[in-house]
Amino acid sequence: MVLETHIAELRGLLGAGGLLRQPEDLAAYQTGARHDRGLAAFVARPATTEDVSALLAYCCRHGIALVPQTGNTGLVAGSTPDMSGLQGVLSLDRLRSVFDLDLDNRSVRVGAGLRLSEINGRLEPHSLFFPIDLGADPCAGGMVATNTGGARFLRFGDVRRNTLGLKVVLADEQGTVLDLGDGLRKNNTGVDWKQCFIGTSGAFGVITECVFNLERLPRQTATAFLVPKSDGHVMGILADMEAQLGAYLSAFEDMSKAAISCALEHVPSLRNPFPGGAIPDHVILVEISRSWAPREGEQSLDAVLEAVLGEIWSRPDEPLADAFVGRPHEMWALRHALSEGVKAAGHLVAFDLSFRRGDVMRFREHMRTELAASMPAVRVCDFGHVGDGGLHFNLLVGSRDAEPPSAATVSELRDRVIRVAVETFGGSFSAEHAIGRTNQPFYDRYASDKLKAMASAFKQQTSPGPIGAARFG
Amino acid sequence: MVLETHIAELRGLLGAGGLLRQPEDLAAYQTGARHDRGLAAFVARPATTEDVSALLAYCCRHGIALVPQTGNTGLVAGSTPDMSGLQGVLSLDRLRSVFDLDLDNRSVRVGAGLRLSEINGRLEPHSLFFPIDLGADPCAGGMVATNTGGARFLRFGDVRRNTLGLKVVLADEQGTVLDLGDGLRKNNTGVDWKQCFIGTSGAFGVITECVFNLERLPRQTATAFLVPKSDGHVMGILADMEAQLGAYLSAFEDMSKAAISCALEHVPSLRNPFPGGAIPDHVILVEISRSWAPREGEQSLDAVLEAVLGEIWSRPDEPLADAFVGRPHEMWALRHALSEGVKAAGHLVAFDLSFRRGDVMRFREHMRTELAASMPAVRVCDFGHVGDGGLHFNLLVGSRDAEPPSAATVSELRDRVIRVAVETFGGSFSAEHAIGRTNQPFYDRYASDKLKAMASAFKQQTSPGPIGAARFG
Repeated sequence: MVLETHIAELRGLLGAGGLLRQPEDLAAYQTGARHDRGLAAFVARPATTEDVSALLAYCCRHGIALVPQTGNTGLVAGSTPDMSGLQGVLSLDRLRSVFDLDLDNRSVRVGAGLRLSEINGRLEPHSLFFPIDLGADPCAGGMVATNTGGARFLRFGDVRRNTLGLKVVLADEQGTVLDLGDGLRKNNTGVDWKQCFIGTSGAFGVITECVFNLERLPRQTATAFLVPKSDGHVMGILADMEAQLGAYLSAFEDMSKAAISCALEHVPSLRNPFPGGAIPDHVILVEISRSWAPREGEQSLDAVLEAVLGEIWSRPDEPLADAFVGRPHEMWALRHALSEGVKAAGHLVAFDLSFRRGDVMRFREHMRTELAASMPAVRVCDFGHVGDGGLHFNLLVGSRDAEPPSAATVSELRDRVIRVAVETFGGSFSAEHAIGRTNQPFYDRYASDKLKAMASAFKQQTSPGPIGAARFG
Repeated sequence: MVLETHIAELRGLLGAGGLLRQPEDLAAYQTGARHDRGLAAFVARPATTEDVSALLAYCCRHGIALVPQTGNTGLVAGSTPDMSGLQGVLSLDRLRSVFDLDLDNRSVRVGAGLRLSEINGRLEPHSLFFPIDLGADPCAGGMVATNTGGARFLRFGDVRRNTLGLKVVLADEQGTVLDLGDGLRKNNTGVDWKQCFIGTSGAFGVITECVFNLERLPRQTATAFLVPKSDGHVMGILADMEAQLGAYLSAFEDMSKAAISCALEHVPSLRNPFPGGAIPDHVILVEISRSWAPREGEQSLDAVLEAVLGEIWSRPDEPLADAFVGRPHEMWALRHALSEGVKAAGHLVAFDLSFRRGDVMRFREHMRTELAASMPAVRVCDFGHVGDGGLHFNLLVGSRDAEPPSAATVSELRDRVIRVAVETFGGSFSAEHAIGRTNQPFYDRYASDKLKAMASAFKQQTSPGPIGAARFG
């Protein structure tokens, strides 16, 4: 239990509205976007980097545990407190005032508490955007702390690639503030320390400001659904599209029939786009885009995409069973509804895996076969990013009406899937959600002793205080 | 002095040809690409990662200092020994056998001792390349250890962006080998430790293998020289080109009249491409490219570039004084000869700076004015990468026939330029060469005490043995 004297001190540090204790105020902060539930001792809401520093210094000196949180849209229990009731939530939702746009540099400095949609809304008049495309709407700080990727990774990369600088506050006795870069694209003057705070869930320090690279907003796009003749044709189609379209290619997303079915069934705003309503076993959403308005004498992007698909269509191995060009809004609406649809369809055990690209389809096949044999009640509703090797491998264990699966079943499933992903295929057990409490056992299992020792020493050197949901030391 | 007993031991570890001691054998390893000279106690040439491990373990246990070296093309004395005669060179020039191409994943694993030209030569039949474009021809290991960028950074990023994995050997008593990634593009399962070995000159460990992202080789390019009406128009031209050309734009390089003059004067293979031979004050090399062969109904890239330049030409503020489209080979030959031309023209004091993009032209103007007033004998022969903020700020201090400048003059110049770059403009004193002995004083001056303490602790945790030309702890 956090002593009342500490609460009074923290309230003094953070001012009115800076500290929440009422159960009704805490609810939103202690519940995650999927199934994690926790109990917050309090929620601290500092309004400035200086306040974050004072808070962390106080909490470090008194051993008060904090879990940093921004948009709280993550899926691995990385931004919520555990059930002990001993952890406070450090919400950065008041760090919203900084928005320094540098048009010449194509970069912006933002407060950690600004949402992706807000950032991009303010950039749109300048025809710029922060090129991370997600179904959810996280905040800047959380996107950095998880190093999220999203559906346009293939073209624009992840948050790491687009982060030019960070301001970080350490959980040490001084609440040390580190300025790690200010918009330089080239800077090799020692260890690039900001990299260590990207994708590490706030365990080594709390991000309060981010400097992001911006890209030109697409002004033309063309989209298609492709139906490959078989799984074995997918990589050939991708290679052909990369060869023929280069940097035009901005998405190559894979959707299983089961995931599409869940979305169509449970998200009422969607329409079944397939002829006769017959959902293919496997659909690839491809998108090409460019940042300028149509120019005289230039082919439209739809024509470019049709020409390229025509070439692929007539290849000797006939890799395509079907292809539909057009209706980008409808296609993306379906793609972005998959996560919601799967969640609504039953009791979900979700994995965010990644592989070398050629292994995505091989893993799917391997795992489907293994699960069909060993756990036939499990329904695979996967989708992912074949273009970058990411795979959202979702398993439904019984319908919504059924009893939820036992903890033992969930644990067995997790163990089985992650063993195959990591040990058989050399994949990653967390592609773009980082380590939260959910992934902690797999960090503990798969990180080597030496890398664990390095993380533990780095933790002591940066934030010895108890901070973050994940444990690195 | 390194004891003969150690030499005998090392020779036993590394086998015949694995250890060099004869002065004529050492010469190439102890002399840098520009003006650094050192004395090597020996050159160790391990042939495998296991040999590197045995060597580092032995040298760590006996306190024998090593400087890792691959292509030795760097310009900051980062890969050569000092004058003490106490340091050995750890050359990785025999680590050349690994070349594992993964076409599905668009990646390759290479030994640290393979040259950029060799890597790209072997990739060309697959229409792929490692997209780092340099005048020099470094090896894989050195490119990672300096995080080099080059002339196509604007489109393809630096080595960091394109590094998917590393194998690193630590200078500890065990010669610990770290496997840091194997081609995954998305992997957030703890600290991404490979980032700490990128751009840090081997001080924390020796890179023996690299996994690189590959890109499709350009199949069409169009190139132009632009003459802006004034420095003040450059950023507007860049913004227009980015808006109109998006990811087509693969270079936006800046060349001063003085640098061009040096190249034309001292590199006999070049031809003066300017009408009447009149070199403009300031020339921008732009390149656009795409990875596919010309398709029916598609405008040629020359036509695209001409159309875009036509639009920029007719803007109300008339930003262009002149523009020449065509002759890409000749244009790039001139661009890549600038470094050699400037070096041949006299006594050179060179800086590899970077800025937020809008500050490149402001810094040039500021520094030219300051130097003209305070050190009028100094001739500024700069060129750089306006598109990414990099600036090769080269100063000629007297002609080749003149006495070289005194150490005091060089030191004063370095101090003066870097103070303005860092303190006035918030720039970097090492954009893409990392820290060697040349940049050590500026690391010591500008890194904060906290960041130095973090580097020092990380050094103890990884490679406590004396390794590398730079000192981080």
